[in-house]
Amino acid sequence: MEIVKVPTPSKSYEIIIGENVAKKISVLENFNKVSKIILVSNPTIMSLHRNTIMSSISSTNYVEFLMEDGEVHKNIKSFDQLCTFMLKNKMDRNSLMLAFGGGVVGDLAGFAASTYQRGINYAQIPTTLLAQVDSSVGGKTAINHALGKNMIGAFYQPSVVLSDVSFLKTLPEREFSSGLSEVVKYGLIRDENFFSWIEDNIKGILNRETSTLVQMVKKSCENKRDIVAADERESGVRALLNLGHTFGHAIEKLTGYKKWLHGEAVSIGITMASRASHEAGMLDNTSLCKIENILKKLNLPTKDTNCFSTQTMLEAMSNDKKNSNGKIKLVLLSKIGRAVITDDFDQSILPKAISNL
Amino acid sequence: MEIVKVPTPSKSYEIIIGENVAKKISVLENFNKVSKIILVSNPTIMSLHRNTIMSSISSTNYVEFLMEDGEVHKNIKSFDQLCTFMLKNKMDRNSLMLAFGGGVVGDLAGFAASTYQRGINYAQIPTTLLAQVDSSVGGKTAINHALGKNMIGAFYQPSVVLSDVSFLKTLPEREFSSGLSEVVKYGLIRDENFFSWIEDNIKGILNRETSTLVQMVKKSCENKRDIVAADERESGVRALLNLGHTFGHAIEKLTGYKKWLHGEAVSIGITMASRASHEAGMLDNTSLCKIENILKKLNLPTKDTNCFSTQTMLEAMSNDKKNSNGKIKLVLLSKIGRAVITDDFDQSILPKAISNL
Repeated sequence: MEIVKVPTPSKSYEIIIGENVAKKISVLENFNKVSKIILVSNPTIMSLHRNTIMSSISSTNYVEFLMEDGEVHKNIKSFDQLCTFMLKNKMDRNSLMLAFGGGVVGDLAGFAASTYQRGINYAQIPTTLLAQVDSSVGGKTAINHALGKNMIGAFYQPSVVLSDVSFLKTLPEREFSSGLSEVVKYGLIRDENFFSWIEDNIKGILNRETSTLVQMVKKSCENKRDIVAADERESGVRALLNLGHTFGHAIEKLTGYKKWLHGEAVSIGITMASRASHEAGMLDNTSLCKIENILKKLNLPTKDTNCFSTQTMLEAMSNDKKNSNGKIKLVLLSKIGRAVITDDFDQSILPKAISNL
Repeated sequence: MEIVKVPTPSKSYEIIIGENVAKKISVLENFNKVSKIILVSNPTIMSLHRNTIMSSISSTNYVEFLMEDGEVHKNIKSFDQLCTFMLKNKMDRNSLMLAFGGGVVGDLAGFAASTYQRGINYAQIPTTLLAQVDSSVGGKTAINHALGKNMIGAFYQPSVVLSDVSFLKTLPEREFSSGLSEVVKYGLIRDENFFSWIEDNIKGILNRETSTLVQMVKKSCENKRDIVAADERESGVRALLNLGHTFGHAIEKLTGYKKWLHGEAVSIGITMASRASHEAGMLDNTSLCKIENILKKLNLPTKDTNCFSTQTMLEAMSNDKKNSNGKIKLVLLSKIGRAVITDDFDQSILPKAISNL
């Protein structure tokens, strides 16, 4: 078991990583004062892991809200349904929410926790790799809007994150790989050693060896923690975490959030951002090849076969939260392990980055 | 002109109080970096004060969202419409929201500002007395839910509050008086001198004399500021601000948010809470009389003629955010100028407090 401590200006908490750590909900300070527990999850997760999670919850004062599975349900309708359910069950400010699932469950539940009666405590128990290495760390919560992903949300820290790597072993292969794109991202933006570690441990990762998974999740969380600690509300360095995401979000939007898993879209986006970096004269060809190779070895896509026109992509990218004053801002790489965020680049490189796949 | 500085752990800002201060939007630090301004208001306010507000906004990059007037529209539907409007107008994180109106506008706009792209800057320009002395101070934002008032929201501080007392002079009499119940409340919970000041200045208040209004708004804001500064997220002393509100919210709910203005319901609630304090042996009879007298002199109601049964009232009060573990918690008075929050009282006093009017 490994523990990553996450200090932020608004709240400090621990990420507990290991086998069977999902049962440790009672580690929460003031757990004995919790008036009621609401578990938010979906039917798929609960059919796989009901026994595991229930063994750690006393059955009194427990209610369960299962949302439909999928990013498309992370919307204001589900949010409203969840709030109504909480009010009907007379949840109060001493109630605790458990977000048990992947990023969709965590984002929706976290946003409801942040806004229900202006904020109640919640714990993240992420069941996907993507959630364990990314969305459960840093306190970003949100719902989607028809006009853009994650457009409505809050920065709101959990009380604890229980990252149980046992859950990763039942993940479908595509979903497991999807999470790896965010792992690669940490190496690319700030941790060259971690990038090399991934290259050296491809086999252990793909075989989902427990000790490799624990190390990988830990190093990912530490990287994200360091960035979040420096910039909780995304006014500066935190934006580096969006490497590949401006392109990725546009691709998800243009394919109706159906064709690609989030991490797959990010993998395509990372490839585009790397190519843009190369076109801008910042990233050498060897590094570009290394990046594309590692993504492919991890069974991740590096292009979308739809070949959207540059114009279509740029329009889809124009609503990105990072933009200001109408200019597209991108995270670009100057080498493996170093990234910058900038809107100060020759915009004519974009068509090449987008189309030249 | 008077300035009240409000320091909170998350953000510090100024409340600027006086005549014609609404024009001072450009006092905002970084105002020159604002990419776009959205003004949120309603048709009533804009028909009265369009010229005043527009004289302070450069017309470029300005959009306007007018919501329907009234508490009943402070709901998730209006919230969704406002977010959609902001996305369609490509508001970004450097956009500024101006909440121009009473508490309803401020609460809805503030909640949208707090959640749009996980938070943008906003300024409060309150036009009602209730908003100037209460809802614009302290960073509480919220929307209502069919099952309870202000149940979905956030603690989110504005960048500045411009409290222009000129706006108070066009308020209908009932609405002006409604705001006075919160003014009286500050005297009751923590400021005996202010209570005496109100008793001594009834005439100047009801005649809406500028200098009296400025002092009254200032003293109210300072009282609220001191409480909020000590307890931004309502974990302790801030709950004292709810004097009369548990009863008041129940009355509003039972009368469908139509019969009473918020401050009127609070005035009835303050009377009930004072009677409960008296029944509990905490508050003497002279003080109880003084409280009822001052409310009546300020043209505020002290009872609801519907005479809801105790059972109906208690059920309506059971969803209050202050409650925990199923017990009703109340703010009670031990004297004028001193309040406590407690669920440790003989619950049999409640029927008397509620019905004995």
